[in-house]
Amino acid sequence: MSTIEQPAAVALAALHPPRRYLFGPGPTMVHPRVYEALSKPIVGHLDPYFIEVMHDVQELLKAPYGVSQGATLVISGTGSAGMEAAVANFIDAGAKFAVFANGYFSDRLTEMAKRNGAIVVRFEKSWGETYSDDEARDFIQREKPNVVGFVHAETSTGALQPGRAICEAAHEAGALVIGDCVTSLGGLPVEFDETGIDVAYSCTQKGVSCPPGLSPMAMSQRAMEFLRARKTAPRSWYLDLKLIHDYSTVSHRYHHTAPISMFYALREALMVMAEEGLENRWERHRRCSKAFAKGIEALGLRMHVPERHRIPTLNTVCVPAGVEEGKVRKRLLDGPGIEIAGGFGPLAGKVFRIGVMGPLATEDNVQFFLSEFKKALSAEGYSV
Amino acid sequence: MSTIEQPAAVALAALHPPRRYLFGPGPTMVHPRVYEALSKPIVGHLDPYFIEVMHDVQELLKAPYGVSQGATLVISGTGSAGMEAAVANFIDAGAKFAVFANGYFSDRLTEMAKRNGAIVVRFEKSWGETYSDDEARDFIQREKPNVVGFVHAETSTGALQPGRAICEAAHEAGALVIGDCVTSLGGLPVEFDETGIDVAYSCTQKGVSCPPGLSPMAMSQRAMEFLRARKTAPRSWYLDLKLIHDYSTVSHRYHHTAPISMFYALREALMVMAEEGLENRWERHRRCSKAFAKGIEALGLRMHVPERHRIPTLNTVCVPAGVEEGKVRKRLLDGPGIEIAGGFGPLAGKVFRIGVMGPLATEDNVQFFLSEFKKALSAEGYSV
Repeated sequence: MSTIEQPAAVALAALHPPRRYLFGPGPTMVHPRVYEALSKPIVGHLDPYFIEVMHDVQELLKAPYGVSQGATLVISGTGSAGMEAAVANFIDAGAKFAVFANGYFSDRLTEMAKRNGAIVVRFEKSWGETYSDDEARDFIQREKPNVVGFVHAETSTGALQPGRAICEAAHEAGALVIGDCVTSLGGLPVEFDETGIDVAYSCTQKGVSCPPGLSPMAMSQRAMEFLRARKTAPRSWYLDLKLIHDYSTVSHRYHHTAPISMFYALREALMVMAEEGLENRWERHRRCSKAFAKGIEALGLRMHVPERHRIPTLNTVCVPAGVEEGKVRKRLLDGPGIEIAGGFGPLAGKVFRIGVMGPLATEDNVQFFLSEFKKALSAEGYSV
Repeated sequence: MSTIEQPAAVALAALHPPRRYLFGPGPTMVHPRVYEALSKPIVGHLDPYFIEVMHDVQELLKAPYGVSQGATLVISGTGSAGMEAAVANFIDAGAKFAVFANGYFSDRLTEMAKRNGAIVVRFEKSWGETYSDDEARDFIQREKPNVVGFVHAETSTGALQPGRAICEAAHEAGALVIGDCVTSLGGLPVEFDETGIDVAYSCTQKGVSCPPGLSPMAMSQRAMEFLRARKTAPRSWYLDLKLIHDYSTVSHRYHHTAPISMFYALREALMVMAEEGLENRWERHRRCSKAFAKGIEALGLRMHVPERHRIPTLNTVCVPAGVEEGKVRKRLLDGPGIEIAGGFGPLAGKVFRIGVMGPLATEDNVQFFLSEFKKALSAEGYSV
């Protein structure tokens, strides 16, 4: 018998999370209906009701992804698990992987692909820059890769990379395209089919405004064909998309025990989204993005990314000279309970990353944020 | 702009899961306090409050695991993600992995290790059998593996495998030991330190009685040393235990966005467990296991595993001749809403798998189950 007892455990305080305004790059605020869904009684992972829930989620994901031909499915892990699933299933050892490298998440893609044994070639740009159609085509035509990776909405920089030219050039070269849609799904159009992406992954805690824990994915017919034609199993069993697709869509044969409550929550978040209407939702985010940038400029501050390349849901604001960004963030968190994030990598100390997504994307909330932001900046020595 | 609209989506019924009695091998019933925790407002994954929650969870896991020297941490995926983390971090390509193969989950371990490039040697036994100390030692001394794997409580068979002799022999041979504790943690003593396990993984939805979605792990000092000494990164980035340990315990540097709500739920489930007291909880499960087996035998049925090798929380009952197990299960689900599972692999059609865990592990619930089980069996032609 174990001799370890746990008096300290029982003495722990009851769970009582502080109330935060989540203006960071995610997680975002969550609709009360989604919290309610989380607390519904669970059923088994092979229960006919849960199979229906998985099916509903897959259907509900099609519109925000812009998928009609391909398949949607959900990985039982966070957005990074989706990224690893994309890498593990589509970039085999020895494959040539061409990455548009302009931020942290393209670095993560690079790292995962290298660990999987791929040969990675990178088109480097400064964090926050994007690629023109010509640049994208030249790179792909020159490198002739097996797989191309780009980040649609780069959370670390606030820059949006259109994918159409990338996908066209990749398909001409016979390559598949992996698109990181972690920060775009639900907050702005992904246009999966129209863009020509083959494999996309996202998360639940940004544009979808659900708590984190799952990774919704989309696969084109071409990607499905690649999976069917695979001669060897991918290195990851947990993230084996053929097995997961079979469990969730085809045979419903046991693969793993899906996170039931998280699926309830995701279904509800997607219902909330569908009821609002995607066009309305995207327009709301665009409107707030403009109001936000206008307010930032009125404070004498500068946005890091030029207007035409901005992600409407995630803003990077340059830290003004003489201000320590960490202190501003701490002040916002300790005072009004506002969470925002700082930059990292080459942007460490140089930008604030401020999300205006989901329930917080209203004009009132933007004004509330700007007013608190101004106070915190002033208290840290910045004068408007 | 995407042309795909979602009228069907909005027309979906509201989420309204049926009420189930989860007598399967997991997920189990969930305490109301855990559901309440799930619906608490989220904070960010780098918020000081969340760091505290992660810390609390790690501390609360030590007693049920029986860890005092090593580390506990939580993987953001289900039990199978924990299994894959163990394989990816401790069984490198070319390593020799010796598996005690007496059920489905040792097959899954085998599959994962092979995908990771390991040389796997297996000690095969029929599903439901266990290994004596001498058999365990002989196998390890003969094979001289780098890593040994065994399943403490085999969900597919109902058999419990003691680990002490395995661990002693493995350590003498200089091997690390991976112990699958998916069905044991929280329902029976794991005795991680005393047994000498180096790497253990579990899930949240069995003995811990929380919804599925996370994998609590434990690592010995020896395992931590192995990680520190690694010269190459493991193939999986998402499941890289050095990075996860750093995020959750040391620097709190961003690795991935942890599933906040699930951590709230796990903390609460572990609090419920700590308040009951582990000895009380284990004794309650043992008592119910005996009452269950007695009731089963009184129905003229046979348990698949001899009494001394049974998992107290998960029972395998032989399907009586002439009865179709799938029909009995359907009848239980459609009628009183009771979920149980069937066997699979070599035990397909031959056993029922019936969990008596967590909130359902009371004498009253055992009697309720037995009475409904008897009705369903009778309706399918079995006469007591």
